[in-house]
Amino acid sequence: MSADMTETQGNWLSPEDLQQARDQMPVVYVDAIPVRVDDRGLVTEIGLLLAATHDGDLRRMFVSGRVRKGERVRDALLRHIEKDLGPLALPRVPASPQPFTVVEYFPDPSVTGFVDERQHAVSLAYVVPVDGECRPSQHALEIAWLTPLDAFSPDILVELADGRDRLLRMAMAYCGVLP
Amino acid sequence: MSADMTETQGNWLSPEDLQQARDQMPVVYVDAIPVRVDDRGLVTEIGLLLAATHDGDLRRMFVSGRVRKGERVRDALLRHIEKDLGPLALPRVPASPQPFTVVEYFPDPSVTGFVDERQHAVSLAYVVPVDGECRPSQHALEIAWLTPLDAFSPDILVELADGRDRLLRMAMAYCGVLP
Amino acid sequence: MSADMTETQGNWLSPEDLQQARDQMPVVYVDAIPVRVDDRGLVTEIGLLLAATHDGDLRRMFVSGRVRKGERVRDALLRHIEKDLGPLALPRVPASPQPFTVVEYFPDPSVTGFVDERQHAVSLAYVVPVDGECRPSQHALEIAWLTPLDAFSPDILVELADGRDRLLRMAMAYCGVLP
Amino acid sequence: MSADMTETQGNWLSPEDLQQARDQMPVVYVDAIPVRVDDRGLVTEIGLLLAATHDGDLRRMFVSGRVRKGERVRDALLRHIEKDLGPLALPRVPASPQPFTVVEYFPDPSVTGFVDERQHAVSLAYVVPVDGECRPSQHALEIAWLTPLDAFSPDILVELADGRDRLLRMAMAYCGVLP
Repeated sequence: MSADMTETQGNWLSPEDLQQARDQMPVVYVDAIPVRVDDRGLVTEIGLLLAATHDGDLRRMFVSGRVRKGERVRDALLRHIEKDLGPLALPRVPASPQPFTVVEYFPDPSVTGFVDERQHAVSLAYVVPVDGECRPSQHALEIAWLTPLDAFSPDILVELADGRDRLLRMAMAYCGVLP
Repeated sequence: MSADMTETQGNWLSPEDLQQARDQMPVVYVDAIPVRVDDRGLVTEIGLLLAATHDGDLRRMFVSGRVRKGERVRDALLRHIEKDLGPLALPRVPASPQPFTVVEYFPDPSVTGFVDERQHAVSLAYVVPVDGECRPSQHALEIAWLTPLDAFSPDILVELADGRDRLLRMAMAYCGVLP
Repeated sequence: MSADMTETQGNWLSPEDLQQARDQMPVVYVDAIPVRVDDRGLVTEIGLLLAATHDGDLRRMFVSGRVRKGERVRDALLRHIEKDLGPLALPRVPASPQPFTVVEYFPDPSVTGFVDERQHAVSLAYVVPVDGECRPSQHALEIAWLTPLDAFSPDILVELADGRDRLLRMAMAYCGVLP
Repeated sequence: MSADMTETQGNWLSPEDLQQARDQMPVVYVDAIPVRVDDRGLVTEIGLLLAATHDGDLRRMFVSGRVRKGERVRDALLRHIEKDLGPLALPRVPASPQPFTVVEYFPDPSVTGFVDERQHAVSLAYVVPVDGECRPSQHALEIAWLTPLDAFSPDILVELADGRDRLLRMAMAYCGVLP
């Protein structure tokens, strides 16, 4: 999860305050798996971001970020999608708040296999169909749209670190398009 | 559920064959609750059809109909939505096949409270955001778009017979907009 | 949500630290609706706690409480259920982490209708069948098991404050037993 | 899906009538993935049946079978679980009718990858925790309880034909225990 590094502007939480809160409690996150769908709603492509992590490494990732105090989950989803996919993207946030899963990130990889070195995060995960033009913005270098079959190639899966390969499989299982 | 009366054209199942199959097995149905959503996916309005039942009565109803042999559930959803809301409607069929509930219709109202006098039907129920222009087509006389609050007025609920008032409440509970 | 008042013992977060974290971020919560089910899994009764709020008022409520740092969501569910229903209760925590809804509590009642005066909480809500003997423990004065029909009586609904009546209806909608 | 071959006794549908109905409409099915769970509801083991197909081949499979006319989905689940796991099994059928997915079986493997040579079936799929003693009954030769990791070994996956390996992955994705 790389979201926080892009929240420096416009965020009312200083790095020190955020760190202090992280030391006390789990942090509420959202994960959004961007997809292209056909007329029948069937997933045809998955959007993968190529982005720099807070360590400066390049990683494939999904849209992910923190829910702010006072912010609705829907608004956090929209904000992070716009931040990562650009202002011309037209996300179709699901009508129901029921996530397809809850992802528990821990610094210790042995707890759930979902890893965030900085914090314990509890993330609501959604599949979000996106229309319109998507452009990498801010920290994202590239957005690649891959068919489910291509996204499940070993080359791609290995680039989805910290449990994100599993999150991809869970999202596609939910959509009924697991290869 | 009024769908069958409109399936006379283009349906490869004669009334006799359909009746015979109904006598043997439960029938697979889909129910679609059409909604308008805002940019954040939040339901703002619910689409209610005013239609004539197979008995000639006027009833408020949702989009509902049979899944044909060989037809994908997604295609059945699209077909029934287009049939009821017209060709200019742009339905956003959910990316996941997971329905928000399964509705079991029986001729006997005491079994589940969901009633279909003609048959035992097992229906996969989905909330479907619809963009574009919706026009009543074929058997539907009118489409009314009501806010959740208006849709839950006693006047409207009483017109949603055979358990449809409960289906409306279940759909809005799922969307987190139960008044 | 009354959970925090019972966390004084054994909680590694001082009231000051908790307050400080609450000032920065939304707090991760779980809500559990305890139910009795028959052999087929059908809900027959709903467990309602009568408990004192942090203001000293008596209120009907469900099991609810904070997820601690480092704690799995499942473990938080079990901990709060045991705290409220006693050590002889046998909860059947669902196999899937997918909640039936996400409840967003705010101090301001106008945001979602779910109210927590102390904080912004994002709560994962589950229906949890419970076997065994349930005894009110700690802050709970009484556990009443009501049929869905009885739980939906106006007398009871009015005692479910801060949006809990709506949470009850959402839970029963999910279980297909909305009266 | 092997259920029908065991329904000869006590089934009020003759093979001819069943065939005739199958020729007209999709057939309503249920799939149940039996699991063992720990105190927190976490899946520890998956129950795999070794059974003879209607062709006489040996296959790994889950509990699966038809919903009869007039039968509730819950009752069909219980009936098929008891048939396959024996009368001492204690299944915990979920409180909600919402399935984790809908499986569409077709004779043609190219449609969805879920194959039933005999029919078009629309199956509601549930994960069902089972307590008590499970004994293979009727057509099942053996029940093997495997950890998720063992169940995902290539040796086992290859024995789960007709899309059942994918159903297993979908069920474990839903439960958050995808290896």
